[in-house]
Amino acid sequence: MTLSARNQLPGVVKSVVLGAVMAEIVVDVSGHEVVSVITRHSAEALDIKAGDDVTVVIKATEVLLQK
Amino acid sequence: MTLSARNQLPGVVKSVVLGAVMAEIVVDVSGHEVVSVITRHSAEALDIKAGDDVTVVIKATEVLLQK
Amino acid sequence: MTLSARNQLPGVVKSVVLGAVMAEIVVDVSGHEVVSVITRHSAEALDIKAGDDVTVVIKATEVLLQK
Amino acid sequence: MTLSARNQLPGVVKSVVLGAVMAEIVVDVSGHEVVSVITRHSAEALDIKAGDDVTVVIKATEVLLQK
Amino acid sequence: MTLSARNQLPGVVKSVVLGAVMAEIVVDVSGHEVVSVITRHSAEALDIKAGDDVTVVIKATEVLLQK
Amino acid sequence: MTLSARNQLPGVVKSVVLGAVMAEIVVDVSGHEVVSVITRHSAEALDIKAGDDVTVVIKATEVLLQK
Repeated sequence: MTLSARNQLPGVVKSVVLGAVMAEIVVDVSGHEVVSVITRHSAEALDIKAGDDVTVVIKATEVLLQK
Repeated sequence: MTLSARNQLPGVVKSVVLGAVMAEIVVDVSGHEVVSVITRHSAEALDIKAGDDVTVVIKATEVLLQK
Repeated sequence: MTLSARNQLPGVVKSVVLGAVMAEIVVDVSGHEVVSVITRHSAEALDIKAGDDVTVVIKATEVLLQK
Repeated sequence: MTLSARNQLPGVVKSVVLGAVMAEIVVDVSGHEVVSVITRHSAEALDIKAGDDVTVVIKATEVLLQK
Repeated sequence: MTLSARNQLPGVVKSVVLGAVMAEIVVDVSGHEVVSVITRHSAEALDIKAGDDVTVVIKATEVLLQK
Repeated sequence: MTLSARNQLPGVVKSVVLGAVMAEIVVDVSGHEVVSVITRHSAEALDIKAGDDVTVVIKATEVLLQK
């Protein structure tokens, strides 16, 4: 299955912080840090931990530009 | 002024497509294509065109992960 | 690969409207209409058309409640 | 008053988890689980609890498709 | 019914631009311009036009800060 | 640098609540309360506290209307 999201970038998980409801995951994407906040439930369901290969997915309508 | 968004990645505009209301801008970020959809009005106000140096800005809560 | 998004609902495409930049796709999910707006480019890349089986994907942080 | 959001689905609350800032609410929509993350403050202001009838509201631009 | 969204601001519509799929509505909120992009279908279903009293609704997780 | 986000409103911070992962900041914008949820990390990096002058930033595609 293919996802409609235009932005799908490969990276490696650097760190995971779990809260009661949310989780913050920092991913290295080609030397840039990309931070994702998902539910703790999802982070645990995917068993996301430092060193994992992941794909960062972002819908194009969520991307702002600064110039 | 500093923006709270955790994800701010430098890139170069590759292409701009203008619709009646929205605009699609493709940005090269370290060799990855990142696509942004903003209003046509914003694209024109920032005068965004191919070759421009821009920063791609994404709120952490908008970033999904796939593993 | 598994996606972190908590909401992944199976449905069938009912209609597709293409604009210059965006596309509107109406999906039937268990008798409910769910409307998705993605880029025209994505709609064409996935070749989305009426009758297709698709999965509707929504990040939990995007879901409001009314009571 | 009518809301512009295209996706408004009726459901029943199955569970509520409260964190310090956020709350996770699982809603049954026609047999599908839909997860919403809102502020704890909102969950308390609406007094959301298991068994409540609610409407799940999602802006069309937040809906991705997978095919 | 009450909506979970924390931000609900009263305003008056100043202008409407319709595209093929999307619509851009500019709203005056206490002297500030607030711009909303919704589907053309929603704008037409609500019959939104200049001079209308509306409420601008924004989920708290969508609000960035700059300092 | 100029940000593409159409909605940039000046305000004053009224309160900050920190969770493990997220932070809730209430801002007074011309007498209206606007609530922002960002990561705790961002709130601390910007050192956001009551009384601070801030700008509230919202992408136009995140703004719903009610009429």
